[in-house]
Amino acid sequence: MNSEKLKIAILGGTGNIGEGMVLRLALQNLMAEGVKNDVIIGSRSREAAEDAAKRALSELENCGFDTSRISITGSSNLEAAQAAEIVILTIRFDHVLPLLNEINEALENKILITPVVPMAKDGDLFVYKPPTEGSAALAIQKNVPPSTKVVAAFHNIPAGKLKDIVKCKAVHDALVCSDDAEAKKLVMKLTEHMGCLKPLDGGPLKQASTMESLTPLLVNLAKLNRLKDLGINFS
Amino acid sequence: MNSEKLKIAILGGTGNIGEGMVLRLALQNLMAEGVKNDVIIGSRSREAAEDAAKRALSELENCGFDTSRISITGSSNLEAAQAAEIVILTIRFDHVLPLLNEINEALENKILITPVVPMAKDGDLFVYKPPTEGSAALAIQKNVPPSTKVVAAFHNIPAGKLKDIVKCKAVHDALVCSDDAEAKKLVMKLTEHMGCLKPLDGGPLKQASTMESLTPLLVNLAKLNRLKDLGINFS
Repeated sequence: MNSEKLKIAILGGTGNIGEGMVLRLALQNLMAEGVKNDVIIGSRSREAAEDAAKRALSELENCGFDTSRISITGSSNLEAAQAAEIVILTIRFDHVLPLLNEINEALENKILITPVVPMAKDGDLFVYKPPTEGSAALAIQKNVPPSTKVVAAFHNIPAGKLKDIVKCKAVHDALVCSDDAEAKKLVMKLTEHMGCLKPLDGGPLKQASTMESLTPLLVNLAKLNRLKDLGINFS
Repeated sequence: MNSEKLKIAILGGTGNIGEGMVLRLALQNLMAEGVKNDVIIGSRSREAAEDAAKRALSELENCGFDTSRISITGSSNLEAAQAAEIVILTIRFDHVLPLLNEINEALENKILITPVVPMAKDGDLFVYKPPTEGSAALAIQKNVPPSTKVVAAFHNIPAGKLKDIVKCKAVHDALVCSDDAEAKKLVMKLTEHMGCLKPLDGGPLKQASTMESLTPLLVNLAKLNRLKDLGINFS
């Protein structure tokens, strides 16, 4: 049974988006359908990762879930990447390239999910600041082994709703881009069972720039229109 | 009474988006609240504009509306711009700069609304192709008199739903960007009474690039996921 589980490393999993992602992915083990996962939180500090894993398990227990079928552990970013089949980068863009350099070999033949959004403050608002490659996704693809399947996903998910595993009933659309059809399909399946997301095929990886630019848009719209934790739906 | 009406020119108003815009703006005259308008369709061909005006009036009549309180006329792009207080550019980006050159003086002190999206085909999909200024909106601002108040709006509105004035009950969010607070407020008010749109403040004009890039995204998502006439909602 355990051998059928996917090992998913969430690097930067102690952060804001990482926290909700850990809970939602771990909960998929209690669902009738979908992918079963072992979740490994990666962090620069192994202790911080282990603490975050304990906190996540406590939170699921406090919500009344049966955590005997859930595995959340913590380790260093490198060890987490080495142990995983899928690696999710929930870190700031300016930390991405140094980290990729550090874990490069561990990414051979793996699926690497990037929800990374390069953005900068501009007065009261945020602006999208893509690197010369055109998007964080394309910059990441350039800095990983050719065998790594890069998938752009989970950019436009409000952290507050993602963490609110019990009360949040909102379902937002989640765009998934990749040049690898199999990897895209698996990530769309993972997305479908997050409980608050409906996956949409976003096309090839070069389309990721628009998805990335939606994040500063959502933050700005919330600020300008006095809204909160905005997600997006297409209909 | 007539003197209180806003004169709105829809340049390229014989096209796909222009058609729905004409109907929705003209219908505001029958609403209890909101801005009252005289709609002037502009086109390279005065005859095509006059025909489009007649067709729009017939369509409103066929739907049972009292057209005695509605004014839709057609003229050349230049005459339409000269007569209007608000000018809407529903034309392709590659025709915009030559047209602005032609009507430049007529735009002094007026509100110019751009729903223009520079995009190009890339295989089966579309990509956003902004000019060097960063967006169509910023390129337009550079090519009009300093007294012209440029407002970016109506980019992400499905043409089919916009035209379907009777049956379409969908309400999509519509982002409005401008550096002129008064102009933005008026365009948001116009938007609010379009019947299918909820205006959101999108910030200053330099934020328009993200709004523009949403249009190829919507077209691509529809194609990739077998959907149709997609609009957008933030919540």
